[in-house]
Amino acid sequence: MTESLGEFGLVARLAALFGSPPDGLGIGDDAATWPADVGSIEVATTDMLVEGVHFRLDWTSPEDLGWKALAVSLSDLAAMGARPGHALVSIAVDAARRALVLDVARGLQSLAGRTGTWIVGGDTVRSPGPLVVNVALVGRAAPARLLRRDAARTGDLVGVTGVLGAASAALALLSEASAPPDPAAAPLLAALHRPLARLSAGQRLAASRVRCAIDISDGLASEALHLARSSGVGIEIDVAAVPLAPAAVQLLGARRSRELALSGGEDYELLFTFGPRLRAELTAALAIDGGLTVIGEVTDRVPAGCASFVEAGRAIDLAAPGYVAF
Amino acid sequence: MTESLGEFGLVARLAALFGSPPDGLGIGDDAATWPADVGSIEVATTDMLVEGVHFRLDWTSPEDLGWKALAVSLSDLAAMGARPGHALVSIAVDAARRALVLDVARGLQSLAGRTGTWIVGGDTVRSPGPLVVNVALVGRAAPARLLRRDAARTGDLVGVTGVLGAASAALALLSEASAPPDPAAAPLLAALHRPLARLSAGQRLAASRVRCAIDISDGLASEALHLARSSGVGIEIDVAAVPLAPAAVQLLGARRSRELALSGGEDYELLFTFGPRLRAELTAALAIDGGLTVIGEVTDRVPAGCASFVEAGRAIDLAAPGYVAF
Repeated sequence: MTESLGEFGLVARLAALFGSPPDGLGIGDDAATWPADVGSIEVATTDMLVEGVHFRLDWTSPEDLGWKALAVSLSDLAAMGARPGHALVSIAVDAARRALVLDVARGLQSLAGRTGTWIVGGDTVRSPGPLVVNVALVGRAAPARLLRRDAARTGDLVGVTGVLGAASAALALLSEASAPPDPAAAPLLAALHRPLARLSAGQRLAASRVRCAIDISDGLASEALHLARSSGVGIEIDVAAVPLAPAAVQLLGARRSRELALSGGEDYELLFTFGPRLRAELTAALAIDGGLTVIGEVTDRVPAGCASFVEAGRAIDLAAPGYVAF
Repeated sequence: MTESLGEFGLVARLAALFGSPPDGLGIGDDAATWPADVGSIEVATTDMLVEGVHFRLDWTSPEDLGWKALAVSLSDLAAMGARPGHALVSIAVDAARRALVLDVARGLQSLAGRTGTWIVGGDTVRSPGPLVVNVALVGRAAPARLLRRDAARTGDLVGVTGVLGAASAALALLSEASAPPDPAAAPLLAALHRPLARLSAGQRLAASRVRCAIDISDGLASEALHLARSSGVGIEIDVAAVPLAPAAVQLLGARRSRELALSGGEDYELLFTFGPRLRAELTAALAIDGGLTVIGEVTDRVPAGCASFVEAGRAIDLAAPGYVAF
């Protein structure tokens, strides 16, 4: 799972220090933006994966690592409604394992080729420490069609693509199993190792005039709270409506699967809000992109800046990172 | 000094795997390029610095580290004749030292503010290993005015900005001294810790229709060889003409200073070639940007793809990384 130092205090201080570019977004959304030329906005993001923190090479092949390192950044662009363009990749590796670089590169190129991304540059450096892979990605979006974190409005419905908790279910199985995982775990392992950034879904949402989205990299609970805080609204999630991975339910049970869907992280699905009149249009638009599940609403029943998770009519207390119970 | 895994074999294999973007440059020059919109080219580069390999925190303050991490990438853009635009910064640090992130950020912002660079995004992650700072930088250049490695032509003169060997002289003094360095070493330490990327010089060269440049990050010997190989020409350098840092000559002697100027690295000056008729114009253009020193020529007296270093009429044998004696 992604473990970040980017808690609110640090991110806010960095954002204040660096400022925002003219007519653009700096630190604080899924990606940064600035005006490109007439009719286009440039959108950029970067993600660093560290061995032993974000991945283990006894669980993940170097090719899968390369794929995932790009997928994480592509997911940020998806959450802005942008399309990818060009990527820069940096890899730090100890000299004895430098042959890994080509395997990681092959995984990167597999996903780059499928998504129209050009890997145009990079840096490969020696390090005595853990393997580190950094991807920086630049893409484009249409002005006035950017999906932002701060655009949720009271009365909106809250939707997600796909199912949640699959990758963290795979991590749970890998960390608990002494034997190779059950064959039924294959879709969970695929979600962990080869996540598909929801690029097409993000672009469809933007084309349908959805304004607010975030990608679910740190778990639904944490990301719903981000939307609520950034937008200054209250969000209520109906826990029973959260779509679970069938293989997770089969192997770990419904209760555990639900916990992982709320707090597990690494889903790389999109969480977004939209006016109720868009529901039918979005259901059709996302049918081949993971599907749309409505899981809650933006409501003044919940205090502004807070997210409430309701099960059987009661708000539950989540001990998730980033979640503040009220 | 920068120690890289990017030896020719690996870089060539990565370049072949990733390909080049349409109408642009992929891996292989100082920076990647692709067409932006009418009248503009996008130029991008990335550099990763690893504690214990590229810097030591007992020699470098976190603020200086931030400055330098950006300077290294700005120097790549300078060597393309580009102007900087937007940067993404990733930092991996162990949890106990995470307060360093803000100090590094302050150093980044000092140089960003002076160079018109916007730091628009980043990722801060936990790592049990060495501190790692990655900068990815995107800028712009005018089409047909890009400085490339492969554009040296026989008959060109070879020039450099500034003086060479200052940063590596500082490293030599730091690694050999038990006491704080001599006050006379101050300009050498400044060259090591707060290098000035030659952005303005690169843009002036491009405006004067110079076509071929590279930045001197790995030492003059190595970079001259890069130009010779990329351009398919022979390059002869007059060792006595190479401009040395006065403080290095004072503290380490002329002979040692010359060795460091040829092979030391971390100079972040520009090495470029140009038609002799441009000499007066470039001398004037670079007068306030470190000055122009002519140190050699592109000549068919040296086999294509080779660089020869001549002292008192004889080719000397450099045991520098990347240098192939012939």
